[in-house]
Amino acid sequence: MSTSPSAAPRRRGRRPGGADTRGALLEAARAAFVELGYDGATVRGIAERAGVDPAMVNHWFGSKEKLFVAAIQLPVDPSAVLEQVVPGDPEKLGERIIGAFLSVWDATGGGQLAALVQSITSHQEAAQMLRDLVSRVLVKRLIEAVAPDRTELRANLVGSQLIGLGMARYVVKLEPIASAAPAELVQAIGPTIQRYATGDIG
Amino acid sequence: MSTSPSAAPRRRGRRPGGADTRGALLEAARAAFVELGYDGATVRGIAERAGVDPAMVNHWFGSKEKLFVAAIQLPVDPSAVLEQVVPGDPEKLGERIIGAFLSVWDATGGGQLAALVQSITSHQEAAQMLRDLVSRVLVKRLIEAVAPDRTELRANLVGSQLIGLGMARYVVKLEPIASAAPAELVQAIGPTIQRYATGDIG
Repeated sequence: MSTSPSAAPRRRGRRPGGADTRGALLEAARAAFVELGYDGATVRGIAERAGVDPAMVNHWFGSKEKLFVAAIQLPVDPSAVLEQVVPGDPEKLGERIIGAFLSVWDATGGGQLAALVQSITSHQEAAQMLRDLVSRVLVKRLIEAVAPDRTELRANLVGSQLIGLGMARYVVKLEPIASAAPAELVQAIGPTIQRYATGDIG
Repeated sequence: MSTSPSAAPRRRGRRPGGADTRGALLEAARAAFVELGYDGATVRGIAERAGVDPAMVNHWFGSKEKLFVAAIQLPVDPSAVLEQVVPGDPEKLGERIIGAFLSVWDATGGGQLAALVQSITSHQEAAQMLRDLVSRVLVKRLIEAVAPDRTELRANLVGSQLIGLGMARYVVKLEPIASAAPAELVQAIGPTIQRYATGDIG
């Protein structure tokens, strides 16, 4: 998909470190994450599939997590979001999470989120990738930094509200949520995320 | 499911135009929409499955769209849900909504919800139907009975959390939400619904 038009067609052997390599790594990563899950897939194995040196993963993506994010075609790097979201008043973390979520997906017009949801509903593999994303890469890492207990359930709850907000705003296009100003949704939904992340969940 | 107990067991041949026919059409429509999606399922094919004349679809439902709405409403009969949900402690309305949502969709194993989401992501018509279902038929009617103001936004917010819960539990199958006891989710998510329906939303 990201393979440049000048990509050599060969599938075997070491590739040079060009855009070709990046595309081959993305393709191999998608296959590996689908087959083996996030934990099961290794940088070495993905590089092997792509026929490139494992150092190319670091060169092009920086880490397995970032390769995963690129492979799932997320418009955002979770670590960048974490940097944006974690610092600040701990009581307003929920508001910052909603604000970051909206700013990321509003910027893509929601089309990528709709495409992601469509993949998830039609392909078990995509659902597996989203599970990994929610529970390991993004939410759990964030939640573990703040949650007093039950991090898995809290991460799920946060994920469920974010998925539902994404569905309502970008896929189903429920009004007024679809056209609401981000600040209004931050006010309305922030406290939900806050309670799920750090509050009393029963 | 709606086939009356006195329904003749025959599967072939034209049925008479009674309630039997309506139930058979709903059953056939559900199977067809799940297998083929909204666009793939045809009035003729559904009538064929039901063993009735295609004219019966117009007679009982008016159109394929209305048949679809009827088919997806079956596990979520709005009047039955309202009867179950509205009476009781107004402070626990949110818990009752989550409880009813889970009892309805758990009973179908979630397969129907997954099929519905898949239709929504691929077909604007299905998204429109869900918008109508959420904002007119189920949530708005319920929310209008209890909300102090901003009924549309409140209905959207409730809808977003219900859609997200449905996605997390039945489609993405996030753990632990996918396997959690309903009572645990009622405790965790009930207060969210309560606040969206009747509380301070900013």
